[in-house]
Amino acid sequence: MNENEAMQLELLRKQMAILQENLDQFFMIINGMFIFFMQCGFAFLEAGSVRSSNTVNILMKNTLDVFVGSLSFFAFGYPFAYGRPGNSFIGHNNFFGANVQYFEKSVIANNQTLGGYETSSSYFANFFFQYVFAATAATVVSGAVAERADFSCYIIYSFTITGFIYPVGAHWVWSPDGWLNTGAGTGLSMQDYAGSCVVHVCGGMAALAGAKILGPRLGRFSDDGLDKPIPGHSVPLVSLGAFILLVGFLCFNGGSIQRISKNGDGLEVSLSVTNTILSGSAAGLSSMLTHRVHSMVKGKGKYWSLLMTTNGGLTGMVASCAGCNDIAPWAALLTGSVAGVVFVFARQFVLWLKIDDPLDAISVHLFGGTVGTLAAPILAIRGQTINGVSVGGPIYGGGVDAWRGVGWSLVGLFSIGLWSGLCCFTLFTTLDMVGLMRIPKSVEESGIDMQKHGEHAYPETFVRIIDDRPETP
Amino acid sequence: MNENEAMQLELLRKQMAILQENLDQFFMIINGMFIFFMQCGFAFLEAGSVRSSNTVNILMKNTLDVFVGSLSFFAFGYPFAYGRPGNSFIGHNNFFGANVQYFEKSVIANNQTLGGYETSSSYFANFFFQYVFAATAATVVSGAVAERADFSCYIIYSFTITGFIYPVGAHWVWSPDGWLNTGAGTGLSMQDYAGSCVVHVCGGMAALAGAKILGPRLGRFSDDGLDKPIPGHSVPLVSLGAFILLVGFLCFNGGSIQRISKNGDGLEVSLSVTNTILSGSAAGLSSMLTHRVHSMVKGKGKYWSLLMTTNGGLTGMVASCAGCNDIAPWAALLTGSVAGVVFVFARQFVLWLKIDDPLDAISVHLFGGTVGTLAAPILAIRGQTINGVSVGGPIYGGGVDAWRGVGWSLVGLFSIGLWSGLCCFTLFTTLDMVGLMRIPKSVEESGIDMQKHGEHAYPETFVRIIDDRPETP
Amino acid sequence: MNENEAMQLELLRKQMAILQENLDQFFMIINGMFIFFMQCGFAFLEAGSVRSSNTVNILMKNTLDVFVGSLSFFAFGYPFAYGRPGNSFIGHNNFFGANVQYFEKSVIANNQTLGGYETSSSYFANFFFQYVFAATAATVVSGAVAERADFSCYIIYSFTITGFIYPVGAHWVWSPDGWLNTGAGTGLSMQDYAGSCVVHVCGGMAALAGAKILGPRLGRFSDDGLDKPIPGHSVPLVSLGAFILLVGFLCFNGGSIQRISKNGDGLEVSLSVTNTILSGSAAGLSSMLTHRVHSMVKGKGKYWSLLMTTNGGLTGMVASCAGCNDIAPWAALLTGSVAGVVFVFARQFVLWLKIDDPLDAISVHLFGGTVGTLAAPILAIRGQTINGVSVGGPIYGGGVDAWRGVGWSLVGLFSIGLWSGLCCFTLFTTLDMVGLMRIPKSVEESGIDMQKHGEHAYPETFVRIIDDRPETP
Repeated sequence: MNENEAMQLELLRKQMAILQENLDQFFMIINGMFIFFMQCGFAFLEAGSVRSSNTVNILMKNTLDVFVGSLSFFAFGYPFAYGRPGNSFIGHNNFFGANVQYFEKSVIANNQTLGGYETSSSYFANFFFQYVFAATAATVVSGAVAERADFSCYIIYSFTITGFIYPVGAHWVWSPDGWLNTGAGTGLSMQDYAGSCVVHVCGGMAALAGAKILGPRLGRFSDDGLDKPIPGHSVPLVSLGAFILLVGFLCFNGGSIQRISKNGDGLEVSLSVTNTILSGSAAGLSSMLTHRVHSMVKGKGKYWSLLMTTNGGLTGMVASCAGCNDIAPWAALLTGSVAGVVFVFARQFVLWLKIDDPLDAISVHLFGGTVGTLAAPILAIRGQTINGVSVGGPIYGGGVDAWRGVGWSLVGLFSIGLWSGLCCFTLFTTLDMVGLMRIPKSVEESGIDMQKHGEHAYPETFVRIIDDRPETP
Repeated sequence: MNENEAMQLELLRKQMAILQENLDQFFMIINGMFIFFMQCGFAFLEAGSVRSSNTVNILMKNTLDVFVGSLSFFAFGYPFAYGRPGNSFIGHNNFFGANVQYFEKSVIANNQTLGGYETSSSYFANFFFQYVFAATAATVVSGAVAERADFSCYIIYSFTITGFIYPVGAHWVWSPDGWLNTGAGTGLSMQDYAGSCVVHVCGGMAALAGAKILGPRLGRFSDDGLDKPIPGHSVPLVSLGAFILLVGFLCFNGGSIQRISKNGDGLEVSLSVTNTILSGSAAGLSSMLTHRVHSMVKGKGKYWSLLMTTNGGLTGMVASCAGCNDIAPWAALLTGSVAGVVFVFARQFVLWLKIDDPLDAISVHLFGGTVGTLAAPILAIRGQTINGVSVGGPIYGGGVDAWRGVGWSLVGLFSIGLWSGLCCFTLFTTLDMVGLMRIPKSVEESGIDMQKHGEHAYPETFVRIIDDRPETP
Repeated sequence: MNENEAMQLELLRKQMAILQENLDQFFMIINGMFIFFMQCGFAFLEAGSVRSSNTVNILMKNTLDVFVGSLSFFAFGYPFAYGRPGNSFIGHNNFFGANVQYFEKSVIANNQTLGGYETSSSYFANFFFQYVFAATAATVVSGAVAERADFSCYIIYSFTITGFIYPVGAHWVWSPDGWLNTGAGTGLSMQDYAGSCVVHVCGGMAALAGAKILGPRLGRFSDDGLDKPIPGHSVPLVSLGAFILLVGFLCFNGGSIQRISKNGDGLEVSLSVTNTILSGSAAGLSSMLTHRVHSMVKGKGKYWSLLMTTNGGLTGMVASCAGCNDIAPWAALLTGSVAGVVFVFARQFVLWLKIDDPLDAISVHLFGGTVGTLAAPILAIRGQTINGVSVGGPIYGGGVDAWRGVGWSLVGLFSIGLWSGLCCFTLFTTLDMVGLMRIPKSVEESGIDMQKHGEHAYPETFVRIIDDRPETP
């Protein structure tokens, strides 16, 4: 090989490395965009599900999830989750972006594009991708506490979940240092590809704590405990949110590989996407049918409920997160079908507990996430890697090791559920004691929008309603 | 070349092959996301175009297009369309995902990422990309049969179109085995890059069959045959749907190359996108002007109609599908301008036939698709490949072969139109005979939402309307 | 190196070059999709901010921004902005797509994919990406002149801004020939990465000229000059638009590198995205707080305003455009915080001038853009390149050269502001003189939708309102 050819080879190697790194970041960023857009999806799912007199309030909370969340996650969340070095419980570096290198004068000669600056860091691509995940976990809560949580309460919990509670759980499972990841000496590693447990069980437990401590909305249950549903004001807005979430979830799961340059990445991405849509579809249909049969049996009529179908579908997608990259399509269909049925009964169970969850966020995320967390290791094809060898799930010949893996997922499920639940219970109880938890009764009765935000969601209708009131004699 | 350099060269070749494959899948998946999002677009285009008492129903149908469609297309649709081996009429493999290889233990030594599993399959990326196309074809119908089709009818036709009728047509044109693709001995190959014929003529004919057999909505035409328009309930929702469809169509056409790693792919993608927006723009403006002039002449006033402009623009995008990758921008402008005018008159024609199409789906998709199918081979620059040589359209020196190509497109147009029309006519007639086609008159009069779904689109308004009713004495 | 290896090396080099080019185009196109979708965002931000009787009108204008804009920018805009050769003031080539090469028969032997056609052109990817930017600039105006501008006026200014006014400014800064880019002998180069000045100051000045010349809407200010706000009809639609714009801005800034294949591109993209979300977040919160305090001081109550938070956030994103790729996160937070405060007071200032801007477009774009244009060179890390050497901003040791760079941005700010302002002032004054500027008083009073478009945004409500009118005796 002559000198010219050697140089060409060297240049090619460098270009290849650059292309791989850039491509991976491009992949993360673009998937991150769709996941970021899920904030819009949650916002409208929630906006349609509340009364029109509380619609500005819920949109405000979702807007602040984006704004407060980005600051909180940049300052604290990412450092706690992924800052290295870290211990097995928590990361601790890069607070407020400290010690992050963006452009540094470098001695590398051939750096053509940035004029002598070293640019190997992938910090920001990782940050953005992880931020959109964290924001999702926080957003789950706003649905469960809708129409009655105080604004200060909201700001504080949103900041805390994004900046501390969620990141710690994420660290356990997704950081190379986390104890559920390293196995804490067991040699096992928890399987939670896209966060059935890390994101949805965490968010769902926070939602449960919030809804429980807040208590139901005024009039949600009659004095003798009867269920008196308070319908939201716009099904089209709910459906709009759901459609946005469907596409968001495909990228949520499809993007979780966070890489597209290595052998098999394309397959893993597209398998994840396929499994996610199949699981969601199966769940939507099984929820629809279960609800119809359940209503008939209960003597409540024979209905094809859009809201049940929609939320069921979302539950199936939540359940597909943990294992979508590592199960066969039939297993995705199975996971989804189960999740859809679970959703309908979880919803009844939450109602039976007299917990008021305007968005069914607990049923979708906590129960859907639980199904997914347990289904993943059972149905896994490749499963966990023990001593460098893939050990598939029980039905793929994984044997005892496979069941130990299922057990480890159970440990993870309880740990994260407990962590999130205890933290949020403490937080919400404290807020409740200092009177920052719930809006005053008068505000709840007349609607939060005009009282707290000075804005009505539909000013023209509002004016007409005011005008329509019978004159005081 | 010493051994080290030879190894580096070999590694680079492997990395390059991996990157190309992954990149192609990434490209398909991300474009697929935008195309998937078109389901949201169609949902709101339709939701806004129907009365508020049927809005939950139409949203439900669009939601189920996604859910039923994915199952149907996975189990039957993709296998019929692209399963290989297949004959010239239909594919037949991979039913329910059978014989698809996702992770197989492999003997390849250097497979670093998936621990010894073979992962060369691009099945899932293809599946997802083709699924979002199939869903589009099925969705077209729901608009034309809105506000009167029975729910069972809907489930059955949605399943059948996605799982059988559309896939067979797609097989003919897009599978390497299909007879319109191989030319059936003529040496020709049908030009339909992104589905003016395969998707839109197919969906449009199904819409025509459905709307014709169902008959018009109650009160749509007066007893003496006068046209009495039933306006939808929300122009903003229509416009939201349309904006989503505009961006969706850009990816529908831009993504149809299904590849980005080969020489010229970037150009073909961006040319397709440019032609699509130009064609849509020209069509929107030509529809707007044609409608204004037509209304004036008919003495109906001088209006700049948003709905006509919007639907005209969509018609132009439908018409650009077939040839967008192979025509000059001026030809895209020409195609769009013609399509916009055709839309306005097609709409009048459908009305004259006393066919009630609440969404103008027939005019947009069937007529727009027809314009595109015929325009593509006439305006083609590179045209079809005959014996390995590109033969441009008639105006690019293609001569007799070019006109034969136009003829072949005409053959394809009639074949697919007839196939879809006959299948759907049979299907809908059967459903009609067994009483599953149309909702009862009482349900149609009082609105489908409360009767069949137990949910009102705008519960607060609904309550107020109920309250407003004059008291029964 | 034997012959086989030499061939492999040569093939790899070719594949690498192809991949880089294709990848760059893919990157531009996909980011362009999200930016294109901003048109939907602006449409709904505006639709929600006007009264329901003018909603069809504003949606029509936003739809035509897409359609008229694409034709205008293809025929004139891109040629004026980027046509080469060009002089330092304006480009002049490729009018109506002339002299653009898409497929040309080529002699290159190994061109496998396009059968002997040369396909090196990246014209269309560039066109599409620049078009979506141009459309943004034009759209800004429609908000400021909402509810009173005539339809002809709208068509003419939209065509002119997209086809001439914006492109000339873009040429100055972003074309290699432009005088603000080359420095006109000063050796300086204006820093405006994603268009704080080129897009937003340009659009904002046009909006100012339009709103000023049109005068306020009827009843916007009382006869004695009191401010009488006219609320829009739907906060959810405003919020929907804002959420879409948030994700759009991330791609607007993240995509502005227009490339992903070179060393450091991934970092630059993800740093831009991170800075944009941080800046927007800081601005949203600072606007929220500033507005709350300002309202309290003015005795107007203590409110957490969603509209102020939302518009503040957008202002922060506008301000982050100019420097997002070259500032540290803390600087993004600083820029955003300032922009948020500036927005609140700019809004008061515009009101004090008795200029009626229904969307606060002037405050968001003109003032936000100004903050960004000035902040970028001051906070820059790498700064401008003088004689091939990067000179950071004043705080990164740039010294005198850095301050000269700030001065050059100031020159650019005034030049583009003046250019856009003067052009638009002339245009709108002329339109005003010939009576094409403002709708007749009767149309403004009864609503533009039914008068000019023959369509009501919410036909059912409209019918009910009509029915509700007291009977004429």
